[in-house]
Amino acid sequence: MPVYQLGHVDNLRICVVMVGLPARGKSLIAQKIVRYLSWLSISTKCFSVGSYRRKESAQPPAQFFDPSNEDGLHIRGQAFEEAITDMLAWFNNSNGTVGILDASNTTRERRERVLKIMRENKIEPMFLESFCENDEMVRSNILDVNATSPDYKGLPSDVAINDMYEKIKYYERSYEPMELSNDSDLTFIKLVNVNSEIIINRIESYMESRIAYYVMNLHIRPRYIWLSRHGESQYNLEGKIGGDADLSERGFKYAQKLPDLVKQYIKDHEKLTVWTSTLKRTKQTAQYLTYPKKSWKALDELDAGSCDGLTYEEIAERFPEDFKARDDNKFEYRYRGGESYRDVIIRLEPIIMELENQENILIITHQAVLRCIYAYFMNVPQEESPWMSIPLHTLIRLEPRAYETLVTRIKADIPAVSTYKEKGTSKLGESSNPSKSMVGEVIATSSSADKK
Amino acid sequence: MPVYQLGHVDNLRICVVMVGLPARGKSLIAQKIVRYLSWLSISTKCFSVGSYRRKESAQPPAQFFDPSNEDGLHIRGQAFEEAITDMLAWFNNSNGTVGILDASNTTRERRERVLKIMRENKIEPMFLESFCENDEMVRSNILDVNATSPDYKGLPSDVAINDMYEKIKYYERSYEPMELSNDSDLTFIKLVNVNSEIIINRIESYMESRIAYYVMNLHIRPRYIWLSRHGESQYNLEGKIGGDADLSERGFKYAQKLPDLVKQYIKDHEKLTVWTSTLKRTKQTAQYLTYPKKSWKALDELDAGSCDGLTYEEIAERFPEDFKARDDNKFEYRYRGGESYRDVIIRLEPIIMELENQENILIITHQAVLRCIYAYFMNVPQEESPWMSIPLHTLIRLEPRAYETLVTRIKADIPAVSTYKEKGTSKLGESSNPSKSMVGEVIATSSSADKK
Repeated sequence: MPVYQLGHVDNLRICVVMVGLPARGKSLIAQKIVRYLSWLSISTKCFSVGSYRRKESAQPPAQFFDPSNEDGLHIRGQAFEEAITDMLAWFNNSNGTVGILDASNTTRERRERVLKIMRENKIEPMFLESFCENDEMVRSNILDVNATSPDYKGLPSDVAINDMYEKIKYYERSYEPMELSNDSDLTFIKLVNVNSEIIINRIESYMESRIAYYVMNLHIRPRYIWLSRHGESQYNLEGKIGGDADLSERGFKYAQKLPDLVKQYIKDHEKLTVWTSTLKRTKQTAQYLTYPKKSWKALDELDAGSCDGLTYEEIAERFPEDFKARDDNKFEYRYRGGESYRDVIIRLEPIIMELENQENILIITHQAVLRCIYAYFMNVPQEESPWMSIPLHTLIRLEPRAYETLVTRIKADIPAVSTYKEKGTSKLGESSNPSKSMVGEVIATSSSADKK
Repeated sequence: MPVYQLGHVDNLRICVVMVGLPARGKSLIAQKIVRYLSWLSISTKCFSVGSYRRKESAQPPAQFFDPSNEDGLHIRGQAFEEAITDMLAWFNNSNGTVGILDASNTTRERRERVLKIMRENKIEPMFLESFCENDEMVRSNILDVNATSPDYKGLPSDVAINDMYEKIKYYERSYEPMELSNDSDLTFIKLVNVNSEIIINRIESYMESRIAYYVMNLHIRPRYIWLSRHGESQYNLEGKIGGDADLSERGFKYAQKLPDLVKQYIKDHEKLTVWTSTLKRTKQTAQYLTYPKKSWKALDELDAGSCDGLTYEEIAERFPEDFKARDDNKFEYRYRGGESYRDVIIRLEPIIMELENQENILIITHQAVLRCIYAYFMNVPQEESPWMSIPLHTLIRLEPRAYETLVTRIKADIPAVSTYKEKGTSKLGESSNPSKSMVGEVIATSSSADKK
């Protein structure tokens, strides 16, 4: 049972109804909202009418979407009904909080139908329209959709692109954008050209304003987010957790090497800002970097309360029940007088919000905090995130893309102890061996989409 | 030196340029933003052109605002220049971050002038228009203005009201509201009827989006915010700080009496939600209340780190330098491995945001946290807030009004130790004597406006 959820008012259920022509980034926005709210433990699910339609018609040509095509209309109508039925079942049976209806919903008639169903089921409808008249943005979205949508899998890209433009034309004929003049009684957010302009109408609950605030901070400018744990600390050497120890000798070596690692990727004219926690080991790790720096208390390590300064063996010995409880549910377990992973996520929320708004950032922080930030960008499920291995002396580069985040791990080739504790043991892992890899060698690349 | 400031990107300076006819709540919104950002330690100041004008013309009649009145034009122009000059000086000499220009700025010409000056001085202009066509709201604002503005001090209210309507008419003649069609290149927020509709254009920085998020959550529905510390705890009896102790016997008595105290003010049909921290003493205090409850980790007491569980005398003995440092700057002092008041404020920010959005809430929390929340509503300066006396077994009722917050303190007549430590001592105050006052007696009423 969650102790509390930010903005989760009792029994409030919201259906975010996407609105917009094809290739306006609706699915992307829907997925980002799902990822963000899920990360905050708010039960959220996206219901894509397109996926239901694909069960009947996997790769229909543009003509399928011609409003005079009766077969097409019937299948699409059925897909809509199935998506709605499943969403209502999910709200009722799985205690859903925010359901997202990912469909074009371009006509007022269709939106009124959604409205009616939601109100009958005591679900607050919030319309979220992505409106875009910028040809360049639309074209870039079309390329994205063609590269990622199952509708175009295996088709030559010029065929797919033309088909997409034709499909859009069919939708344009009946498109009725949301307008303050006509829709003033509805709760809606209208994004114009991503978020260069936003219209917000009748936002009443805190949850709705949070969703609005989140989409307000999204941007599509390319950038990298760099993550690193602090260099090996004296406490790491002694196997102790928490504290505010100095770096070890090898930790200092990592700090000295960090500027070179970063410079391999960030050109001189590119901007970068370094964020650290308020603890010595992260500031010492950042000390040779010449970029602007900012230290955040919200980036401090998970507070181990009474266990601060102990080794895992000591914790197992002194607090055997707590030790087991933490293994059983590491995400929810709160150290006596300290924090749980859930607590850390809540305090990281402003960091994530600012990260969404910023461009290149390098974050030097601690194991648990880094796991939580990584989990957000890589969409790692809650129960897995506390068990991820994020070794010392490794720089991680995240590249957020439309439908995935690319990740590159760059090893510094400076040995360090392992701080990874396997479930059910009180022993730490093997010392991470300085392999024969080159300094700055990329040891792994992967993407958040791999997990799907 | 602040360790970090939420959303304060280096060197970013913003001028919030208010726009709107008289009696549209501009000054109220401006003051709320000042209070909110100042509470977050973001250097913010409001420059009201009206106050500068009053130096020359204290109580001008409506005709003064007739655009064909040359004297009036001259004096108003001068007031505008003085306000701008002082604002620029403040940005440059006092490291200002957010300056608010409180004036009507109803013409495009005037706004372009402000824009030009701000851009020349590398200050980002963000326009914030309050647009309101709801006659009822305008009338209610006129009554507020007449009651509080020095322009109408001492005048009979019917005279003042008529004058105000006449003044508004002069402004209406040349009013050019902000519009997406004409002002699409400007950063602006347009609030329609408080916030039932919001248009946001070209918000680029995190700070701007935070201001937008804040005004998005404001409402003007009447409500009360109730505050109480937990009942006296075992640790309070022993003079220890921190920990997670149970209530003392007297603390339980307070918990038992709390429902009656609340019921004197909250009628049966009125809604109330109770928020507690995650610590036992606040949950035990709330246990006899039958309203919906929610517990927040963000409401936990200031973390005293290494000093947790010690008495002030023990702290003075074991950490004499820390003890003195904390006395010297209690707001900034961060306990070893723990928190400062500044840290608590940062984690309370989502609580304040949700509080702005909610209606009746009763918060049962801890001394330091309560001081911070109280400081926000009562506009208490940062350096004073850690020294405020907020005794045990006292219920506080806050009533946010347009330009002030009314406060009522209700004593439960159950004795408790004093936990107030005076500056420069390690002794706690005298035991708070059960006076001869009646149960639930109002022992003090005051208002945030008293401080001005």
